Amino acid sequence: MLSFKKGAEHEVHRQLNRHSDIPLYQQIEQIIKEKILQGEWPAGTKIPSQRKLASIFQVNRSTVTAALDELTAQGFLEGNRGGGTKVANQTWSQLTAGPPLDWTSYVRSGIHRPNSMTVQEINRQEFTEGIIRLGTGELAPELLPYQQMEEILRRAPSDRLMLGYEEAKGSRYTREVLAEHLGRKGVRVSADSILIVSGALQALQLISIGLLKRRAVVLAEKPSYLYSLHVFQSMDMRLCGLPMDGGGLDPSVIPAVKKRHGADLLYTIPSFHNPTGKLMSENRKRELIQMSKRLSLPVIEDDAYGDLRLDGPPSSPLKAMDREGSILYVSTLSKTVSPGLRIGWVAGPEPVIERLADIKMQTDYGSSSLSQWVAAKWLSSGLYDENLSWIKGELRRRRDEALRCLETYCRGIARWEKPSGGFYIWVTFLKPLSLSALFEQALQKNILINPGTLYDKEAKYSIRLSYSYASLPELRYGILTIAELAGKLM
Amino acid sequence: MLSFKKGAEHEVHRQLNRHSDIPLYQQIEQIIKEKILQGEWPAGTKIPSQRKLASIFQVNRSTVTAALDELTAQGFLEGNRGGGTKVANQTWSQLTAGPPLDWTSYVRSGIHRPNSMTVQEINRQEFTEGIIRLGTGELAPELLPYQQMEEILRRAPSDRLMLGYEEAKGSRYTREVLAEHLGRKGVRVSADSILIVSGALQALQLISIGLLKRRAVVLAEKPSYLYSLHVFQSMDMRLCGLPMDGGGLDPSVIPAVKKRHGADLLYTIPSFHNPTGKLMSENRKRELIQMSKRLSLPVIEDDAYGDLRLDGPPSSPLKAMDREGSILYVSTLSKTVSPGLRIGWVAGPEPVIERLADIKMQTDYGSSSLSQWVAAKWLSSGLYDENLSWIKGELRRRRDEALRCLETYCRGIARWEKPSGGFYIWVTFLKPLSLSALFEQALQKNILINPGTLYDKEAKYSIRLSYSYASLPELRYGILTIAELAGKLM
Ligand SMILES: Cc1ncc(COP(=O)(O)O)c(C=O)c1O
Ligand SMILES: Cc1ncc(COP(=O)(O)O)c(C=O)c1O
Repeated sequence: MLSFKKGAEHEVHRQLNRHSDIPLYQQIEQIIKEKILQGEWPAGTKIPSQRKLASIFQVNRSTVTAALDELTAQGFLEGNRGGGTKVANQTWSQLTAGPPLDWTSYVRSGIHRPNSMTVQEINRQEFTEGIIRLGTGELAPELLPYQQMEEILRRAPSDRLMLGYEEAKGSRYTREVLAEHLGRKGVRVSADSILIVSGALQALQLISIGLLKRRAVVLAEKPSYLYSLHVFQSMDMRLCGLPMDGGGLDPSVIPAVKKRHGADLLYTIPSFHNPTGKLMSENRKRELIQMSKRLSLPVIEDDAYGDLRLDGPPSSPLKAMDREGSILYVSTLSKTVSPGLRIGWVAGPEPVIERLADIKMQTDYGSSSLSQWVAAKWLSSGLYDENLSWIKGELRRRRDEALRCLETYCRGIARWEKPSGGFYIWVTFLKPLSLSALFEQALQKNILINPGTLYDKEAKYSIRLSYSYASLPELRYGILTIAELAGKLM
Repeated sequence: MLSFKKGAEHEVHRQLNRHSDIPLYQQIEQIIKEKILQGEWPAGTKIPSQRKLASIFQVNRSTVTAALDELTAQGFLEGNRGGGTKVANQTWSQLTAGPPLDWTSYVRSGIHRPNSMTVQEINRQEFTEGIIRLGTGELAPELLPYQQMEEILRRAPSDRLMLGYEEAKGSRYTREVLAEHLGRKGVRVSADSILIVSGALQALQLISIGLLKRRAVVLAEKPSYLYSLHVFQSMDMRLCGLPMDGGGLDPSVIPAVKKRHGADLLYTIPSFHNPTGKLMSENRKRELIQMSKRLSLPVIEDDAYGDLRLDGPPSSPLKAMDREGSILYVSTLSKTVSPGLRIGWVAGPEPVIERLADIKMQTDYGSSSLSQWVAAKWLSSGLYDENLSWIKGELRRRRDEALRCLETYCRGIARWEKPSGGFYIWVTFLKPLSLSALFEQALQKNILINPGTLYDKEAKYSIRLSYSYASLPELRYGILTIAELAGKLM
């Protein structure tokens, strides 16, 4: 996932022609000039560093320097105070009156917050060739069901596709399939009470603009995936963390928290929590439902990983215990089939679903009907279950290897718990160390980790280890290296 | 498009078993009881009217009455002051302490505005069997390329699908195809300056939360599609209308408008404007570009219909004249291929595209990769152009028939202009009449029209006629009937 780069440093993807008569520096000059003349790099845009350009174009730094000097002489570029180079204000296009259009101020003044610098850096690095991704919360490419998907698509003609705009809640056919799917987990809802969304993240986005006032207070586990996002914060809502223990979040603290900070909504990931991997105990689930009732506190249950129980019987969602409609249930195909499909769903009280559906219509007129159709095929054909049990087997092997490596390399310097499902192991170092140094040094060794601080500002000595993406050898090498680096830093 | 129904009246989709020993009224009782016990209809939910329930279940009203009486006696339902029936507060589930969770207040207090009642009514009626849709802005089902789509999917295996999360800006392959597609229209941008979105509407949504402050002022043609949405208004931005004439919007008024109301952004649909069908003249385009430069006013060009020129040579986008990057170009496959794909794009200055990409990632982690892949296939294979020329032929026939009918039935009572492309004819009645009466009376005759007031509060005597959806006989019958009704109402 590539992301917005603050300070607007940009990438150039263009091949040089090494067999051409035109010198390389002139080719580079030409490419950059085009970007400027076409308005892709407006006045004030900071261009990539010389080092970066040299690496992009695979040339010597002196070649880049020659190109930039030329462009500067022609008035296209100018040095800026920070020592970088930016697009000059006085290009030919600005000769006609008026100050240059200041896009930068637009980019800066938008309501929605940019991703944190760390998240941006991680998103960028994920696309680096050869990097070992120990933090990535997605299935490895080899766990994605390319073959089955091709099979489904190849059989397309036998069914009528859906190419028009869909109903607001999503294709009725897909919702009916989802209602059955949920029924098998004990979640009894009809198709009318289901909204199809473009992934679970969009559900959170819709909830933030659809159900809450500005300044509303959202409770969530601490740490939580929610802290790595800005969905609620961008709408001026406040997050408030709830402590967790072995059984997950402890509902008994909620009344005091509510009294002190207020509480308009509770967000929880009861099954295979992101980032701690914890599973909420059955007792705790019952207590949480009771508490939600007692305090009239609506709960969002994020069940993204719920189907990924690796040991023991499937875990049942909170929502299966909900008889009053106080739980809005959210889930997705991203962690079990394919994130690229962008299919998730929300189930809950019908008036709430209809409100969210109305906003969804106003936001993007519904999710891809192709994806909805494919999702229905997956869930109704038995393919989902078949694929799930295969994926679980693969995840189990990876988790066990990760645990073995932790045991071998990290005993005495960190603690962790064995997760019974999902993607994550939350590793906490036993002595203080600089996470940012660890992050940087690991990166130098081509290893990408997710610092705990993404999920809880105070988790300064923890990392989220993911076993869903890296291969077994990568897990071994990665964990060993992290252990060595951390040992030195502590 | 079905939408949220204010006052929370809900639909029930469930078949009764007419061969069962259980009387129909008891079956209905059971279905409603389940909805309540499962929390789908929480306390306070207004249930559908008896008339509506009778029609849904295809039974006599007395059968419905018997079911509701039974449920009321059991304490599940109670009458409300308005004469309707709602779910009672004291169902067994509420016996445990605490006031019932008041979802309604959540539904009401969200930041994003609900769709207008008229839009909601239209969205609902569009799914009525046998309705003639004279206002609908989408291609008729028979104009959607089902066969070609199946063909594309059937060949899926020959290419590698993309099932993982994509880069923030969208699949590079698809963006490269788009860059070429845009190049053929004279829009010169590289793949780096393109963001793939889930339809043009999402682009507007991202711009609203990504580039503008609260209270920002957005200029737009008056009337405009933009007024039928709440994208900007929900974020506390203000719309300000610009007058149009035969050549489209007149840029010379902008300085005065800016002085008076401010101006942070201009939104325009230069080609085959929604709802008026107008095409901006070449002179006006040049003037607008100049004005944008002079006032440092960024422009969003919505080119949803740009490829649908029905007479004369293709119209070229504003963006093709933009050398300073002051235009953000937005377009979509919805009006030329399939709205269900939910694929649109934004092209513009790279720092702006990256900002929007970052927010897109935070909103839904990118668009369906399946849809992106299919979009690339369409645009790169020649299929797009082939299909487009067929669709244009069909639209031309429909437009010409609509114009003939207007000429025959509406001469003397209304005026309109012949659109040279797109989907719409803007019909203005020559004497005052009640649009809401026209809407209602047309609906009684099974004809759905889009009142002008959706696009401009002051367009009280206009309607947006669409020739993209209705068949030729429907156009004839529909326009004749509207003419008769309007004649009586004027
Ligand atoms: C707990 C949780 N919820 C939601 C999501 C978002 O998933 P989706 O791809 O369905 O938007 C993630 C993905 O990381 C997640 O970990
Ligand atoms: C001018 C204009 N822009 C954007 C849209 C939204 O289209 P999409 O389906 O690409 O979101 C429409 C659809 O009616 C439209 O008329």
